[in-house]
Amino acid sequence: MGFKSVFHILGTAILTLGLSASSTLAQSDPLSAWNEGTTKQAIVDFVAAVTTDGSADYVAPADRIATFDNDGTLWSEQPMYVQLAFALDRVKQMAPDHPEWAETEPYKSVLAGDLKGLAATGEKGVLELVAVTHAGMTSDEFTKIASDWITTAKHPKTGKLYTEMVYQPMLELIDYLHDNDFKVFIVSGGGIEFMRPWTEKVYGIPAERVVGSSIKTEFKVVDGEPVITRQAALNFLDDKEGKPIGILNHIGKRPIAAFGNSDGDYQMLQWATAGDGKRFGLIVHHDDADREVAYDRKSVFGKLDKGLDEGPALGWTIVSMKNDWKQIYPAP
Amino acid sequence: MGFKSVFHILGTAILTLGLSASSTLAQSDPLSAWNEGTTKQAIVDFVAAVTTDGSADYVAPADRIATFDNDGTLWSEQPMYVQLAFALDRVKQMAPDHPEWAETEPYKSVLAGDLKGLAATGEKGVLELVAVTHAGMTSDEFTKIASDWITTAKHPKTGKLYTEMVYQPMLELIDYLHDNDFKVFIVSGGGIEFMRPWTEKVYGIPAERVVGSSIKTEFKVVDGEPVITRQAALNFLDDKEGKPIGILNHIGKRPIAAFGNSDGDYQMLQWATAGDGKRFGLIVHHDDADREVAYDRKSVFGKLDKGLDEGPALGWTIVSMKNDWKQIYPAP
Repeated sequence: MGFKSVFHILGTAILTLGLSASSTLAQSDPLSAWNEGTTKQAIVDFVAAVTTDGSADYVAPADRIATFDNDGTLWSEQPMYVQLAFALDRVKQMAPDHPEWAETEPYKSVLAGDLKGLAATGEKGVLELVAVTHAGMTSDEFTKIASDWITTAKHPKTGKLYTEMVYQPMLELIDYLHDNDFKVFIVSGGGIEFMRPWTEKVYGIPAERVVGSSIKTEFKVVDGEPVITRQAALNFLDDKEGKPIGILNHIGKRPIAAFGNSDGDYQMLQWATAGDGKRFGLIVHHDDADREVAYDRKSVFGKLDKGLDEGPALGWTIVSMKNDWKQIYPAP
Repeated sequence: MGFKSVFHILGTAILTLGLSASSTLAQSDPLSAWNEGTTKQAIVDFVAAVTTDGSADYVAPADRIATFDNDGTLWSEQPMYVQLAFALDRVKQMAPDHPEWAETEPYKSVLAGDLKGLAATGEKGVLELVAVTHAGMTSDEFTKIASDWITTAKHPKTGKLYTEMVYQPMLELIDYLHDNDFKVFIVSGGGIEFMRPWTEKVYGIPAERVVGSSIKTEFKVVDGEPVITRQAALNFLDDKEGKPIGILNHIGKRPIAAFGNSDGDYQMLQWATAGDGKRFGLIVHHDDADREVAYDRKSVFGKLDKGLDEGPALGWTIVSMKNDWKQIYPAP
């Protein structure tokens, strides 16, 4: 083999090596749906700080608790909460047995297709509606109803399954935290039993790491069979001041990182980021009218006002969906 | 090398191999504090059935949920619940600020050292006492108080730390289930925040896998600092019918195996073992007066009556501490 051939082979090998290295690098970026910039860098820096053994900011894996809001943070919440779409479907199914609903809010608005009227009943009205339409069956039956619905119902505008309208950058972020030995929890204002049937498959977060609002339940034995029945009364509202309470009750530790998108998440981020040591708070700002929906201070669902004003001074990272996210939804 | 030498070396090798194999075997029995017999065999058979891929009874790891009662199941509950000993200590500390307690039950009995009078106030009275003596501080402060107490307080009879009075066979059982990819939870009538500071260290069960009774809490900002304060009111009683409710709320799945020792665990075992597929229920029967305490139907703490009568017909395994356990407490 002549000198030129050796050189050629070596050159090819180096080129191949280079290509292969860069291709490995591209594949191995765990946050590839995030654009480079201060937001992505803030996430990477935080995780490096708390996971580097010997670092002043090191946190043992047992204490690497991260909490994520769901609606508007992990998946779309416009034109309405997904669980509300589920509740509306059920109201229409149940209406024939409830003639009085024609004159009673919030059912009247639902049946008239008047979402503004429904929204006017406020978040508590919405949650009451959810409780009523979700009650009157066993917990096992409800799990099946929710599972069946979520695998077939489509978003009114995109025609996608709701579980296809989760945010790719946030899925990567959850995986990235898991890979760095974080324990990742959902802490949502939504119904705990509505989320649990699908969170493991969609987010990789198992049922026992889902915290949410709940209605009252009762254990009893019916025809010799023990069942848990769902009652039409609110048990716990996991929103605003409720979020730190829900976290304490379910997790028993203060998160070192919290992720939200609305003022309903303010207290969760406040609680998480006020603790000792290195902390991380992040708010997803829906500012991308082209690829999703642009909304904040005046939105009925996912109102973000206080967090936008006070977040930066509290050291929270504000994500611009428009600028920070290379991709919104997972590739089909 | 002559024939004899080869034989000698081979012989030594075989002997060494034999010794090493048998020593490995002895070390590798994950339930070595359990005597051989039908009880130990029932545990091993159940775990083999649900973890053997292709078996008709196979259960995926995500659904291998096991729940354990704490008092009397994982550690001693005589002469009184450990948390009650903690509460009594606090009553004595707080009494000077509460002169009215001298005439009010259950405090009157506590201060008089009259445990029978206290017991007569019933389980709800006991839990109310716990709530009152555990309230009036932040959650972080309470965690420190409980941690400090548990690392120093001694059992009145044995002089051991309470955390040294956990049951070695049950510690092995928890480890055995963990090794077989079970998710193991504590589901106790005791206070959730009283247990969490030490369950990971003592049982290998982290804070977020502890379910228990709780008092009401409130999130507020004091002098710019967010805190969760503990209120003197019961929030949730995780006992009897409360246990399946607590399980649904915290875990979101029905356990396939449940372990208890008293009638307070009856509904948890009933709920777990009535589900589809292979199930396992186990009751620890305190029948060893020599090595621990013998009690059941008439005990104030850990009363076991209904479970003893109905358990066997329901397929539950009844553990005789006297006959089934080779060892009670961990070696010092």
